[in-house]
Amino acid sequence: MGVKITETILRDAHQSLIATRMTTEQMLEIAPVLDQVGYYSVECWGGATFDACLRFFNEDPWERLKKLRTAFKKTKLQMLLRGQNLVGYRHYPDDVVEEFVKKAIYYGIDIIRIFDALNDIRNIEMALKVTKKEKGHAQVAISYTVSPYHTIENYVNLAKQIEELGADSICIKDMAGLLSPFDAYKLVKALKEQVKLPIHLHTHYTTGFGSMTYLKAIEAGVDGIDTALSPLALGTSQPPTETIVYALENTEYAPKLDLEKINEASEYFKVLREEYIRKGLLDPKVLSVDINALHYQIPGGMLSNLISQLKEQGQEDKLDEVLKEVPEVRKDFGYPPLVTPTSQIVGTQAVLNVVAGERYKLVTKETKAYFKGEYGKPPAPVNEEIKRKILKDEKEITCRPADLISPELENAKEKIKEYIENDTDVVTYCLFPQLAENFFKLRFAKKYKVDVDLVQGNKVYPV
Amino acid sequence: MGVKITETILRDAHQSLIATRMTTEQMLEIAPVLDQVGYYSVECWGGATFDACLRFFNEDPWERLKKLRTAFKKTKLQMLLRGQNLVGYRHYPDDVVEEFVKKAIYYGIDIIRIFDALNDIRNIEMALKVTKKEKGHAQVAISYTVSPYHTIENYVNLAKQIEELGADSICIKDMAGLLSPFDAYKLVKALKEQVKLPIHLHTHYTTGFGSMTYLKAIEAGVDGIDTALSPLALGTSQPPTETIVYALENTEYAPKLDLEKINEASEYFKVLREEYIRKGLLDPKVLSVDINALHYQIPGGMLSNLISQLKEQGQEDKLDEVLKEVPEVRKDFGYPPLVTPTSQIVGTQAVLNVVAGERYKLVTKETKAYFKGEYGKPPAPVNEEIKRKILKDEKEITCRPADLISPELENAKEKIKEYIENDTDVVTYCLFPQLAENFFKLRFAKKYKVDVDLVQGNKVYPV
Ligand SMILES: [Co+2]
Ligand SMILES: [Co+2]
Repeated sequence: MGVKITETILRDAHQSLIATRMTTEQMLEIAPVLDQVGYYSVECWGGATFDACLRFFNEDPWERLKKLRTAFKKTKLQMLLRGQNLVGYRHYPDDVVEEFVKKAIYYGIDIIRIFDALNDIRNIEMALKVTKKEKGHAQVAISYTVSPYHTIENYVNLAKQIEELGADSICIKDMAGLLSPFDAYKLVKALKEQVKLPIHLHTHYTTGFGSMTYLKAIEAGVDGIDTALSPLALGTSQPPTETIVYALENTEYAPKLDLEKINEASEYFKVLREEYIRKGLLDPKVLSVDINALHYQIPGGMLSNLISQLKEQGQEDKLDEVLKEVPEVRKDFGYPPLVTPTSQIVGTQAVLNVVAGERYKLVTKETKAYFKGEYGKPPAPVNEEIKRKILKDEKEITCRPADLISPELENAKEKIKEYIENDTDVVTYCLFPQLAENFFKLRFAKKYKVDVDLVQGNKVYPV
Repeated sequence: MGVKITETILRDAHQSLIATRMTTEQMLEIAPVLDQVGYYSVECWGGATFDACLRFFNEDPWERLKKLRTAFKKTKLQMLLRGQNLVGYRHYPDDVVEEFVKKAIYYGIDIIRIFDALNDIRNIEMALKVTKKEKGHAQVAISYTVSPYHTIENYVNLAKQIEELGADSICIKDMAGLLSPFDAYKLVKALKEQVKLPIHLHTHYTTGFGSMTYLKAIEAGVDGIDTALSPLALGTSQPPTETIVYALENTEYAPKLDLEKINEASEYFKVLREEYIRKGLLDPKVLSVDINALHYQIPGGMLSNLISQLKEQGQEDKLDEVLKEVPEVRKDFGYPPLVTPTSQIVGTQAVLNVVAGERYKLVTKETKAYFKGEYGKPPAPVNEEIKRKILKDEKEITCRPADLISPELENAKEKIKEYIENDTDVVTYCLFPQLAENFFKLRFAKKYKVDVDLVQGNKVYPV
């Protein structure tokens, strides 16, 4: 029956390559064609797109969703959700999570992919529960990383927990492109043998493994993969849809997609690609292989961060030391995957450890919060001695972090009551108060023909 | 013992991505590091680099070779040779072929990869014979293409002929990136079972198949592959060396290369990449997947050629017709691989067939020469009816095309005698008379402090 293809060009691809700058209009123009391809799903919402709609386009992300739902008559729409962080950058209270997921499904999302940077299931629970209750497809993603702790056995155990939790499918989320083809084969094989749920695989082309990794995962029986149409594929984005589809032709894995429609959509995005390059949105730098990820197992963005931190302190000569310290810090931290926010926390702490001349003599407040348990439970046990040194007498959090966060919906409703136009405004405000308020004020001003400057108190609104 | 890696960054990679503009100095600076990596060979000469040395850098290509040989103490140097065309664009007489190959090996080439666009063994024979006589490694390449004629059986038969001819190894040369991963597996498997010679695989990333194709070929037992360091990999170039090497780590296929040296070389070329992009030499366009090659099985360059030919005649609306005519013409021609020069001959003929409203009412002189046999023997039988229509009473050539070409060395020697400084000057002149003459004159002028303008008869020399 062929491997299932999730098209990411409307979400992850442009988020990864052009800082989430594809506009709703650019999406809608080609949506009817994409709808005819026969994709398993089209990822088109969530992740950074929510933020970007407000921040860069002064647009209501919910309106985009509604328009996409109207344009896609038969294809399942998919979104990415950062567990209890939703589409934001902190833990939100349960009432906000519930409201957000409810509305996302109500306005058209079919499949919600839910993940947590630390793979702490407790950060995923609430979103999953609501998704199921609202009859959505709950796909739980495992953040993939490489460490002595991250054995196939441990991944299988995690997958079993996800299965017990009631997820509809599991995704291996290889955000840094670290999953090598032969490791993918072993991991998928083990999961398929020991877990009943469909297994999807998500990777980025960062290290160049991407398409090889999909190929071996497919041979191992993976159910679905994520690809992006070629004009926005490769580099920090996904492997190209066309290449994968043609590579599988005449095999048992061949997905049944309409090649003419793929070609038509591809030609459309080719023109946009040229435009993105011309405008400087697409930098050829992101299209090459990130050898640092291969050589140091450190994502490219993290390495340049370390270098600039060292430069600020005039200690660039310490880079080699820091590069040796990073894996040590990561070990002390219980081997978190190096993604936002852990990549920054681990990186900055490694720099401090080297520059101060003594490990953990200085710690950031994020390091402290991490050891306190505010981000959740680290994958492996942390270094107890260091934890005590950092926390001193302070008590750590052992409960689910969100249990300590009070409800926010009612308060928010009160705060923005004069601006409310839609049933999604309150939750939007909870997620990004400042951006939302600016957006609401401008919307208000436009609607009632009020002077925008007046409403905004003479601040210039960044469009 | 691991798969053998041939590094192409000093030849095919920059020929494919930046029109052969890497300078000798840029090569020499990193050569000592590349020499330490442990590559099976480094491709660094031949192909278009000979032409480019003279044309763009006013540099003697033989001097580049000598310098590279001095810089590479232990790594085998490899070159690409277009059979009887050598590194030029027409058939040369045997005395020129003999002299060229002799000197190439004398001045440092260890491995000569010899191919013919039509896979006509007779166009390869002479170069092979001389390579063997001069104790070089003769690798014969099979130009890979897809057609009803190009079955695995026919490829195996061709490989057996190459084996009988006395080649040291065989290369599958997939210049258009058409070889899909699963087809690569079958082809390599069959060749390994029925031929004793080592099998190498050369591909371009054009369609995005590249690394997947290598992976499956490796699983099928391929002996060697061609890769390019990541800063000049992907797109129309080869798959990235680093990615392939890291993907094979901890497997039986792992090549034993020095990862630190690879990283050092990669960092060096990263800086050059930035420079090439800044100067406009590296256009991000060549870095994306060529979906036309996938969709129409027509190389990207050929498609844009067809479009511009139709535009010139104001008949762009005929493109669909032409795209349907191309495979028909190719069939009439006996399924030649679509590379230079056949892609131009077939393409132009397809345009003429459509525009004239009658097939082969008009034919180019190249089409006629092709049917006459001047390029060699087509892979499959040509359409006899069309051949008769085109040739009329003219007799076709059934012998080896080069048998009809008179020796040229002596004549050339006479012509440029006043400029001769090196034992390679005469053969250089035979290959590119105009470029060589300009180069010799300038060299002469510099050496004897003569006014360049005078020597060149007041022509401005293009540097
Ligand atoms: Co992603
Ligand atoms: Co090539």
